Amino acid sequence: MSVAGQERPLVEALTGDAEIARHFSAEAEIAAMQAFEVALAHSQAALGLLSPQAAEAIEAQAGPAVRPSVAALREGIARDGVAVPALVRAMRGAVGEAHGASVHLGATSQDAIDTGLMLRLRDVLALLQRRVEGLIARLGALAEAEGDRPLMAQTRMQAALPFTVSAKLSTWRRPLENHRERLAALRTRLPLQLGGPVGDGASFGPAYEALRADLAARLRLRDAAPWHSDRTQILDVAQGLALLAGTLGKIGQDVALMAQTGTASIRLSGGGGSSAMAHKQNPVGAEVLVALGRLSAGLLGTLAQSMIHENERSGAAWTLEWLVLPPMAEAAGAALLTCDRLLAGAQFVAKDGKA
Amino acid sequence: MSVAGQERPLVEALTGDAEIARHFSAEAEIAAMQAFEVALAHSQAALGLLSPQAAEAIEAQAGPAVRPSVAALREGIARDGVAVPALVRAMRGAVGEAHGASVHLGATSQDAIDTGLMLRLRDVLALLQRRVEGLIARLGALAEAEGDRPLMAQTRMQAALPFTVSAKLSTWRRPLENHRERLAALRTRLPLQLGGPVGDGASFGPAYEALRADLAARLRLRDAAPWHSDRTQILDVAQGLALLAGTLGKIGQDVALMAQTGTASIRLSGGGGSSAMAHKQNPVGAEVLVALGRLSAGLLGTLAQSMIHENERSGAAWTLEWLVLPPMAEAAGAALLTCDRLLAGAQFVAKDGKA
Amino acid sequence: MSVAGQERPLVEALTGDAEIARHFSAEAEIAAMQAFEVALAHSQAALGLLSPQAAEAIEAQAGPAVRPSVAALREGIARDGVAVPALVRAMRGAVGEAHGASVHLGATSQDAIDTGLMLRLRDVLALLQRRVEGLIARLGALAEAEGDRPLMAQTRMQAALPFTVSAKLSTWRRPLENHRERLAALRTRLPLQLGGPVGDGASFGPAYEALRADLAARLRLRDAAPWHSDRTQILDVAQGLALLAGTLGKIGQDVALMAQTGTASIRLSGGGGSSAMAHKQNPVGAEVLVALGRLSAGLLGTLAQSMIHENERSGAAWTLEWLVLPPMAEAAGAALLTCDRLLAGAQFVAKDGKA
Amino acid sequence: MSVAGQERPLVEALTGDAEIARHFSAEAEIAAMQAFEVALAHSQAALGLLSPQAAEAIEAQAGPAVRPSVAALREGIARDGVAVPALVRAMRGAVGEAHGASVHLGATSQDAIDTGLMLRLRDVLALLQRRVEGLIARLGALAEAEGDRPLMAQTRMQAALPFTVSAKLSTWRRPLENHRERLAALRTRLPLQLGGPVGDGASFGPAYEALRADLAARLRLRDAAPWHSDRTQILDVAQGLALLAGTLGKIGQDVALMAQTGTASIRLSGGGGSSAMAHKQNPVGAEVLVALGRLSAGLLGTLAQSMIHENERSGAAWTLEWLVLPPMAEAAGAALLTCDRLLAGAQFVAKDGKA
Repeated sequence: MSVAGQERPLVEALTGDAEIARHFSAEAEIAAMQAFEVALAHSQAALGLLSPQAAEAIEAQAGPAVRPSVAALREGIARDGVAVPALVRAMRGAVGEAHGASVHLGATSQDAIDTGLMLRLRDVLALLQRRVEGLIARLGALAEAEGDRPLMAQTRMQAALPFTVSAKLSTWRRPLENHRERLAALRTRLPLQLGGPVGDGASFGPAYEALRADLAARLRLRDAAPWHSDRTQILDVAQGLALLAGTLGKIGQDVALMAQTGTASIRLSGGGGSSAMAHKQNPVGAEVLVALGRLSAGLLGTLAQSMIHENERSGAAWTLEWLVLPPMAEAAGAALLTCDRLLAGAQFVAKDGKA
Repeated sequence: MSVAGQERPLVEALTGDAEIARHFSAEAEIAAMQAFEVALAHSQAALGLLSPQAAEAIEAQAGPAVRPSVAALREGIARDGVAVPALVRAMRGAVGEAHGASVHLGATSQDAIDTGLMLRLRDVLALLQRRVEGLIARLGALAEAEGDRPLMAQTRMQAALPFTVSAKLSTWRRPLENHRERLAALRTRLPLQLGGPVGDGASFGPAYEALRADLAARLRLRDAAPWHSDRTQILDVAQGLALLAGTLGKIGQDVALMAQTGTASIRLSGGGGSSAMAHKQNPVGAEVLVALGRLSAGLLGTLAQSMIHENERSGAAWTLEWLVLPPMAEAAGAALLTCDRLLAGAQFVAKDGKA
Repeated sequence: MSVAGQERPLVEALTGDAEIARHFSAEAEIAAMQAFEVALAHSQAALGLLSPQAAEAIEAQAGPAVRPSVAALREGIARDGVAVPALVRAMRGAVGEAHGASVHLGATSQDAIDTGLMLRLRDVLALLQRRVEGLIARLGALAEAEGDRPLMAQTRMQAALPFTVSAKLSTWRRPLENHRERLAALRTRLPLQLGGPVGDGASFGPAYEALRADLAARLRLRDAAPWHSDRTQILDVAQGLALLAGTLGKIGQDVALMAQTGTASIRLSGGGGSSAMAHKQNPVGAEVLVALGRLSAGLLGTLAQSMIHENERSGAAWTLEWLVLPPMAEAAGAALLTCDRLLAGAQFVAKDGKA
Repeated sequence: MSVAGQERPLVEALTGDAEIARHFSAEAEIAAMQAFEVALAHSQAALGLLSPQAAEAIEAQAGPAVRPSVAALREGIARDGVAVPALVRAMRGAVGEAHGASVHLGATSQDAIDTGLMLRLRDVLALLQRRVEGLIARLGALAEAEGDRPLMAQTRMQAALPFTVSAKLSTWRRPLENHRERLAALRTRLPLQLGGPVGDGASFGPAYEALRADLAARLRLRDAAPWHSDRTQILDVAQGLALLAGTLGKIGQDVALMAQTGTASIRLSGGGGSSAMAHKQNPVGAEVLVALGRLSAGLLGTLAQSMIHENERSGAAWTLEWLVLPPMAEAAGAALLTCDRLLAGAQFVAKDGKA
């Protein structure tokens, strides 16, 4: 959460995920809002609410390919609490007098910001889903290779009864399959937000519902009644992220327990070294998974506070979302990368120590 | 969370919900576990795994109608961490030597406890759903009666633009309609848990999958692979409860803001008196809604920690669930009762002060 | 959090603490508020603000020994959001016309409720401190008896280097000694709350500061400027509770790890039985400690939301405190009882399995 | 939490604090750990445990002025879970064969990391304290200028009784004065961590306690028994940060409420513009304060989970600290900057609208 130009904390070598973080960068935020404004103009043109020339001018001269100054938008957000007034000013300036007034017509900041977030979450969810699929495949390969080995099941921190590696792996795979379906469902149901200043659509005139339907189709989002003050959508995405990080945290906890000295039923390659004890192999990846799972659980509860969203728009609750949702996405992403690496170097071990 | 025999804290007059709490009482827990054991025996009898006489004896002599001593089960849980060993002992004793061994055949504590919880959650979710429907109806009636009145929309704590009471009410109603669907979906998808000691079903023999299907049908639960160490199901119910409490907290926050002195756009009857200022009418119900919403958000994040469930059964993570899920259900229930009373006494007020 | 007259959930056999809960019962709340009102009258009499007869009448006819109807106060809180208006009405009625107006003179609900809470917390903190002392003594005895035994230190879930039982026990004892000091410091610094309706003391007239000093001395609380809208005091008590539960949760986690099959370096007596696996000894107490520690951590974060206390009194933030602080106290208390029992039955085990 | 080289999220223009973040950058972490290693060598030389030449060589050739490659340390942390093994390797290489073995003598990663954190927290706490002092001064000036104005106190979201601007400001100032003392106390009591591999000091030989005392004095930290597995110290700093952010969140909430249209008792300059409603002045800074306060409360509860620290060192709990404490510090810092700017542009307004 720090300012550009400094080396990020060391821990991010363990817990960062540049591919996910990219979608929450200033550039990505701005480009997504521009995409919203361009599509809105095209939809309004399609419905005869503005001229096709205006829409084309907006796309050509102020679309995502035309980058406004990030520094100017940072000033804007510091002043206005949101970057949209400054962005709209910049876009109108770029478009020029003829069509400037056609930018952001009838819309409000929240329409651009929430819809822009949905566009970015679509990519984030798709990326996470692909990684979950990769992890499920890895578990399948592991089951194929080592599934028949016997393993001692552990309940309540005690040896219970013998089962198989395959049975163990299925307890990891089943929730991941569930999460894969959930991510897909979330992704295909991400809603458009279009409501205008007070969320009733009145600023878009009598064609409001047609406009919303056209814009949703154009942006490949779900047409939805305004949800400006109902943050269920955000919480459902967050729940998907937290459940994923929680399942991966559970896998990490299991691996750390199974890799313990003396009873080790799993052997890890690439484990961490110690600055004081050369004989040690620390289950670093497994521990990181637990940490990310616990972080994500806590962030979910923090984000849920933003459901209490004052009246037609709460700057406070909304800002809280912006602070909490991106680290949740990055934690889920980093956990998937970590879990995949961890399992790539894991081998189940028989009682006699043979892998 | 205190012990029986004492007067509960005063605040429960505001935030308690006896109807919900009933489903989390010791009696309800025990009866639900007995219902599981009886149904299991009938399913095993249906598959020829034990005699019909055994199943009938279990139902007649140890079913929910036959109450074991709560005190003995409390001793059991204090010793074993779960009540099931003591319950099974009591049920076997009641059934007698001939059929005693047929009680809890192949099952483990978690099967009885988790399935028993699902049976109780079914009733809880149904009750909440009925109340949500009642609240939606009340909002409809309010819209019918007062929907055309003008109202000033408030964004970011500032007057924005005029809209109507009807537009405002629809921002409250839409998420509740969503939650109603969610509660119904959760309720009809509550899963059976049946996995035996280490969750692989082996203790039930080759007919395991047929047994699971029969038992699920008998208990009207969803047939599902064991989820003993994957707590997604619990978290999804909790998410439903927290979203509901969050939406109601948002309504409470809105009402408290709208009822402020000087700009009041809503008038509340039955508001609270002050011990020092006779002129005051405190928006008690609205404040309670905010408190319950914030409590529920925090509890959601706390419960999510239990996703990190060690190996095949974590006593720690499981105990955490038992501590957190019931107050979440009670908070949601109490919030629904409170919101309904609050809106029953609310009237929108025109600028000239006329209701 | 449920209503009286029902059997409490079974889990309370593990996690309840009747001795602590007693201080948060309706009776204890009411008695503490009566003690405040009586002491206030005496202080006002001492300063010549009302007659000694009035103060004596209030003590005799409406003091803690005279129990008002809990049911009437529950009605009052349901109506007013706080029980004080109904309590003051009842006390004035009991005192009669001559001195009725002398009850609660210049005070507001918050003065009675917050000060009443401080009086009860004093007993709670003293009780916890005594238990911490007992636990420290037990650890000392354990160190005396078994401290010289060798033990393998575990870092990052791996065997590190050998140390001794004594060294291990000192990592448990040191934070408890710290917490003992903290509990004592918290207890002796619990502040009086006296500010009147808007927290500026004006309602008590020019003798306000003298009155506050006298009342603080009388109630053996710290004289303090009004903290009606600054909840640091509450959070500091909560922090003390959460740190204590966290340390005990750490001990529980250590014990559960040390009691694992195969590498057991600790042996527990009285461990829990399994309904399916007769050979198992589950480390129930250790798991309960972890659960209570995680619960308490989550509740601390939830309670901290109440720092955002609107203006001169926030019904919402205040209600949240009432919901969260008592279970935190009970969790800390139950954890102390559980930890003491757990260690009473624990023996460190040498590698050859000899205790 | 993202990776270097990308523009940080736009919201950081509102919620970032570069001055605080600097102390959590990779460079600051590394330099602090080098300072620990250099001081350790000097202390060991002072006690005759290594030669003065070795200590001087370490300072000259591997001290904070000599920057190791951040990229190499990132690789190290990704492999080992901590950067210390790679850092020690780099420092030993820089020092050369003659004195290389004198680097990190007897120490473990945790000694360097935890002590390094304390050194950085000292600067962070000092910076925060200075800002709190500035804010208290600003409140004093505001009271001087506008304190006599009448103001309507608000309790439970309702007009209560008139008091003064001065009385209001004192409810903001008092907790800040308390926090100023707390920050100072925390800062002067930050403890050295020195325990060696398993936290018992054995690796430092018989002079361990003398060494610890010398090193503590040299680093101007408090000499303390090892706290490697007792994270109370971290939690107490976090509590200080959360209380501060909470008090500032309360001020923000008050300002947002006081700045509402129609009843405004405060006027803000530099408020935020709207993209859709030119007449609006959004209380952006006030909202940001509320968001940061709620974030910080949630993070406190998340961090408290790390009290459950497995055995002699928990990689999972420790990693969680690294993820949560820095954003808490940055949130507190950003809140102080925001609050100062907000109040610099605030004027209390009389009922007739005159400032």
